[in-house]
Amino acid sequence: MSRAAPRPLRLALAGFGNVGRTFAELLPGPYGRALRAEGAAPVVTAIFTNRHGAAIDPRGLPLRRALRLVRAGGSLDALHRGPPVASALDLVRRAPADVLVELTPLAPTTGEPAISLARAALGRGLHVVTANKGPVAHARARLARLAARNGVRFLHEGAVLDGTPVFNLVERCLPGARILGFRGLLNSTTTRVLAGMEAGASFEAALADAQRAGVAEADPRHDLEGWDAAVKACALANALMGADVRPAAVERRGITGLGPEDVRAARGRGAVLRLVARARRDGRAVRVSVGPEEVADGDVLVSRGADGVLVLETDLMREIGIWEGAGGVDQTAYAILSDLVAIARGRRRR
Amino acid sequence: MSRAAPRPLRLALAGFGNVGRTFAELLPGPYGRALRAEGAAPVVTAIFTNRHGAAIDPRGLPLRRALRLVRAGGSLDALHRGPPVASALDLVRRAPADVLVELTPLAPTTGEPAISLARAALGRGLHVVTANKGPVAHARARLARLAARNGVRFLHEGAVLDGTPVFNLVERCLPGARILGFRGLLNSTTTRVLAGMEAGASFEAALADAQRAGVAEADPRHDLEGWDAAVKACALANALMGADVRPAAVERRGITGLGPEDVRAARGRGAVLRLVARARRDGRAVRVSVGPEEVADGDVLVSRGADGVLVLETDLMREIGIWEGAGGVDQTAYAILSDLVAIARGRRRR
Repeated sequence: MSRAAPRPLRLALAGFGNVGRTFAELLPGPYGRALRAEGAAPVVTAIFTNRHGAAIDPRGLPLRRALRLVRAGGSLDALHRGPPVASALDLVRRAPADVLVELTPLAPTTGEPAISLARAALGRGLHVVTANKGPVAHARARLARLAARNGVRFLHEGAVLDGTPVFNLVERCLPGARILGFRGLLNSTTTRVLAGMEAGASFEAALADAQRAGVAEADPRHDLEGWDAAVKACALANALMGADVRPAAVERRGITGLGPEDVRAARGRGAVLRLVARARRDGRAVRVSVGPEEVADGDVLVSRGADGVLVLETDLMREIGIWEGAGGVDQTAYAILSDLVAIARGRRRR
Repeated sequence: MSRAAPRPLRLALAGFGNVGRTFAELLPGPYGRALRAEGAAPVVTAIFTNRHGAAIDPRGLPLRRALRLVRAGGSLDALHRGPPVASALDLVRRAPADVLVELTPLAPTTGEPAISLARAALGRGLHVVTANKGPVAHARARLARLAARNGVRFLHEGAVLDGTPVFNLVERCLPGARILGFRGLLNSTTTRVLAGMEAGASFEAALADAQRAGVAEADPRHDLEGWDAAVKACALANALMGADVRPAAVERRGITGLGPEDVRAARGRGAVLRLVARARRDGRAVRVSVGPEEVADGDVLVSRGADGVLVLETDLMREIGIWEGAGGVDQTAYAILSDLVAIARGRRRR
């Protein structure tokens, strides 16, 4: 491999919440080292936040200062150079960047604003890396085509199971194999609530516990009603099985109707209740479903310590499972790094 | 991607047992399609067997006829052109090939004859793909250096967990992450014997059962005494953690001393006995161990239906598990395909 001087890789961050900040903390350290090893010197040239202003600087923003400002409740505007940034879309259209790192808060039923930002970026020849499941579930085929037309990439390893390789596993490690279907636990909140009821708590107490642990959102309906899992299952079906399924088409049941008595009944049958996401080929279509199922003790889906599990059924390699230990925001941040490395390698090859 | 006419990829097969024959069966079908999609037209130009002769033909051997001959107990010599093949090494030195596919029966304590064949092939500029754990455990660093010097690759996805991506997972999907250690169930025979005792069988009956199922070898000592797992654990430590550990240096205990009473005692503690392989960094060294452990119910290592499980502990991504459903010879054959695709992609890039 050539060991020429690293070439700048200019990043625009749209969204600077937990994942974005963790990414920014690790970029000067291990993440930067991993990128420089692939010939890319990362520079953050733009950051957009909803509540802490925005900043663009073609020479690179001072990351530590940006983190301090945002943590102290200040505004990034102090670091900005040039005309004011009107919106995230405005920033994406103007940022002097090679890659849009898209980490905005998501409306799961529409995939916005992530989709519009991704389109704007791809349209002007920026690679897009996202940790959002929305654009993959709602618009993957379209965005992938737009990326191909512009000679750039649309990557989204962080959309499902945090940074655990799922999309990359299939693309890079299962050549020639066809994914026939999958089953998985993709949503942590529902697993927490059901496990809490197994341990004797009421639904409400188990949910409150998951919220205190930072797993469940303040408004947990998207999780409990199976929307989060449905969007992730669509993202997987679209990317891994070449499907074009929308979340609204998923056969979806949540866990809101379940109580301790259901959990106990499953227990009596040597099983636990879990919200299971499934996909299966059905002729030329792909059927996706999400719903509570009794999963027998000893099944890999209910192994202890897992934050998420996905079992792929393939033609040439039968069943392969990928298992994520206790997940966290640093794992989602790692997904961004992993996708950026893919971009750096691709650039180097050209 | 360019869609030029595929360029021949000439393969020499050393070893034509179950894996080699399955590979040869699938090459004209799905495997060939996967390779042609990467610009490579596979041709088998040489086959060496221990009991059914050998054949070289620069124009390509007729695979279906070779399979029929060997299955009928005949000899491949009928397909050979040129001076007689004296040995596997002779074939490797003479074969008009781009890749040696190394599938010979292995002496686990030495890694031979696989190591000598791999050296001869790499030395003359052939890529080497092997499903043998021996050369990876005993000589990986050496063979990788020799490959690099000759501008070719030494690939071995099939050495551990059949075709389940393990080596490729780390190399291709975990950029920048450091493997701090691992734990895994790498040997099917011991899992079968221990599970058989859990179901009420004696050690001998459980072993006989595993032999009837084709999982355990006629001479099962290498499995039962932990050699097989130790060699695989070394292969993993050497390839994934940059170690240079030899199987003889593994802290190794087998399961031969265990009986139904031990299994029952573990059961009483909510656990099962399994032969667990572990590796861990210890300063600049890597410590590798294999031995029976009580694994608690619900641990991913003892999830049902798994033929093997590996949990990697990493710095940037915490724990990631990879899980193989019921394993088989077609999965090991797939590992060969997967490595050949990597070679085809590399050739195309140059």
